[in-house]
Amino acid sequence: MDFNVPSVGKKRVVIVGGGFGGLKLANKLCNSGFQVVLVDRNNYHQFLPMIYEVASAGLEPSSIAFPFRKIFQKRKDFYFRWADVTGVNAKENLIETSIGKLKYDYLVIASGTETNYFGNQNIEDVALPMKTVEEAMSMRNILLANLERSLTTADLKERQALQNIVIVGGGATGVEVSGALSEMKRFVIPKDYPEMEVHKVNIYLIEATPKLLSAMSPQASANAEKFLRGMGVNVMLNTLVQDYREGKVILDNGMDIPTRNFIWVSGVTGTSFDNIGSEFLGRGRRIKVDEHNKVIGLDNVFAIGDVCIMTAEKDYPNGHPQLAQVAIQQGDLLASNLKNMEKGKKLKPFHYRNLGSLATVGRNKAVADFNQLKMHGWFAWIIWLVIHLRSILGIRNKVMVLVNWVWGYLTYDKSIRLIMAAKRVKRPKGVN
Amino acid sequence: MDFNVPSVGKKRVVIVGGGFGGLKLANKLCNSGFQVVLVDRNNYHQFLPMIYEVASAGLEPSSIAFPFRKIFQKRKDFYFRWADVTGVNAKENLIETSIGKLKYDYLVIASGTETNYFGNQNIEDVALPMKTVEEAMSMRNILLANLERSLTTADLKERQALQNIVIVGGGATGVEVSGALSEMKRFVIPKDYPEMEVHKVNIYLIEATPKLLSAMSPQASANAEKFLRGMGVNVMLNTLVQDYREGKVILDNGMDIPTRNFIWVSGVTGTSFDNIGSEFLGRGRRIKVDEHNKVIGLDNVFAIGDVCIMTAEKDYPNGHPQLAQVAIQQGDLLASNLKNMEKGKKLKPFHYRNLGSLATVGRNKAVADFNQLKMHGWFAWIIWLVIHLRSILGIRNKVMVLVNWVWGYLTYDKSIRLIMAAKRVKRPKGVN
Repeated sequence: MDFNVPSVGKKRVVIVGGGFGGLKLANKLCNSGFQVVLVDRNNYHQFLPMIYEVASAGLEPSSIAFPFRKIFQKRKDFYFRWADVTGVNAKENLIETSIGKLKYDYLVIASGTETNYFGNQNIEDVALPMKTVEEAMSMRNILLANLERSLTTADLKERQALQNIVIVGGGATGVEVSGALSEMKRFVIPKDYPEMEVHKVNIYLIEATPKLLSAMSPQASANAEKFLRGMGVNVMLNTLVQDYREGKVILDNGMDIPTRNFIWVSGVTGTSFDNIGSEFLGRGRRIKVDEHNKVIGLDNVFAIGDVCIMTAEKDYPNGHPQLAQVAIQQGDLLASNLKNMEKGKKLKPFHYRNLGSLATVGRNKAVADFNQLKMHGWFAWIIWLVIHLRSILGIRNKVMVLVNWVWGYLTYDKSIRLIMAAKRVKRPKGVN
Repeated sequence: MDFNVPSVGKKRVVIVGGGFGGLKLANKLCNSGFQVVLVDRNNYHQFLPMIYEVASAGLEPSSIAFPFRKIFQKRKDFYFRWADVTGVNAKENLIETSIGKLKYDYLVIASGTETNYFGNQNIEDVALPMKTVEEAMSMRNILLANLERSLTTADLKERQALQNIVIVGGGATGVEVSGALSEMKRFVIPKDYPEMEVHKVNIYLIEATPKLLSAMSPQASANAEKFLRGMGVNVMLNTLVQDYREGKVILDNGMDIPTRNFIWVSGVTGTSFDNIGSEFLGRGRRIKVDEHNKVIGLDNVFAIGDVCIMTAEKDYPNGHPQLAQVAIQQGDLLASNLKNMEKGKKLKPFHYRNLGSLATVGRNKAVADFNQLKMHGWFAWIIWLVIHLRSILGIRNKVMVLVNWVWGYLTYDKSIRLIMAAKRVKRPKGVN
């Protein structure tokens, strides 16, 4: 048991998931007197706000992925383990994983969310999700492969289906990938595929509610929509996807769109674990926590970030938005609170400080909300670039992203137009 | 038929494979009056001399892969098709591919080689080849995954097998990847895996003949061996791999090495096509060509580069070495000869001009042969870097590689330590 994590006479904090929240927490627990064990499905942290750039061939996957072992190279009492966490056994204070069981003194669930297909198996079978760097790489491969195929099929209906791109979900990811693909259509496809009738490459962005970017201000939503329409994206609001059948996306307005490029960024649901049943879950299958991020109904088990829902804060009675900032601030506070608990000090409740939000649509085009200040256009875009570049881990990655951005800006190019896939490596199972 | 390549009233040259030879030929046929169709299994050219850097986590795959459509963006009368070529029907002047048939006026086979397992299915089933960028990515994933697994297995024999690395084949690729992995062992593993007993990570390089780099001078071979031994690689010469059974590499000297990291760079064989039977093939299943690279026994069908064998040149009675330089020079000459044929001019026979050869072993360590001048060490290494950087296609890729090299040199790091795989996209089949 304990898959080779030694007992060192210190209390052990096990963190499930090294996203924004888990990473912040692990970092702040440096020299805290705890032994920290981080368990993740991947051996790298993913910088998901720029995942659309991987999907649209603008950035290398490695530019937005950072190996955990590199991040924690000089840390004492820190252990990384590459595994799937399958269940929580709170009675015995242990987690169950693909490589065995592990005891904890404190458990922090920071595993984020997964794509929500709302129970529609037809959609799940064919849709392209965009929640991980690997999924973004797969999407890039499929989009490029379908363009190649569209040139060589003699079936004109099939050709149109291969050239139609349907993006479902008008949140930040949907808006950003729509914008990036419309730039690829405008700047890259005519040069790469002189044989292709580029006006037949249609990009549809489908959103169920009346506005894009529903988490942002009405101004931001309106400007994003205006930008996208100006870039030739068919934005369809108040439109629900009912099904995917016979190669077509079926909409509730009676329209069917034939497509082989069916991008699904329409919603998320909390990751699930054995023994964390529905009594622990709130809206969106998020784990209910109190104002200290402690899971309601369990001792010494916490949850932070997108996977949890906290309704204790007055301004957010339905829980906080599922944003990196919330996860980071919760990870930060929980690190202090864990240390406080050990010292017998009082715990501090969580208060979300909204630092503003941003979404980029394309070259010189972004929208930004900072409290009273709403911005759009070139300046918002520059702010987007600076904030995101600052947030990328590691100097090498910052340099790589910057070179790619400058190169892309000057040449109007998306350089990583490669249909390339490595063999999938199974995460270890039953090794222990 | 002709999968949507239009007839334009020009003679059509079909090139199978966009490696060094095919790419050179296609480039030199610019404005030649021919319609050029390039068919490749991938949508990108691969710069294979640096593939070992991808396998050892030093470089992004995208840095040594360059999309064909980008290379030929402004070319008239050029068509790229992404397909597997399965057969040649010389009677009807057409090739058979995964997306249908295509007529040619001139056919040039430039499809290179594939890994030779010498008929041993046990080896083929488990060994990691290194002939493509995708294979190098897979190898990186597997090596890193095995290191992770070695930490969490309780079975000490299994742990040792996961930490042993066996490289079979002492040519340039084998030498280069051995060197890169020994640097990873020395500089990265102790920092990334403080729990690991790094002296148990053993690297074996197995070569059947009495010397490494058999295509190079005795001095280069001896120096490469000295470098590698100094770097802690177990170099085993005159040693034949007989089999892989029960998780062990079986050697002819009576030794067995348990390993899950079994890298096979031991030999190649020409790619094969339906209707190019053994009567057309020479040593190493290479297609026999005359001094103009015309396939012996066929009209208007040519073969260049690694896939062909030309015994007409006096100094190379057993054929030329399978090197990028030979392929490039043959592609260059064939472009002139095809133009000459159209003008009714006499064809020029091929003469290989040996520009020298190089192999790198590690930081400040390379070996180089330039006619009378043999070099090794720092200066040879700088020459290696300059020549390879110059050969990489595209300014963006040059910048990316340079940044990675400088970064790696200063930090002793191999940055791309990611276990990451996209979904495999099937090449189109039967679309037409």
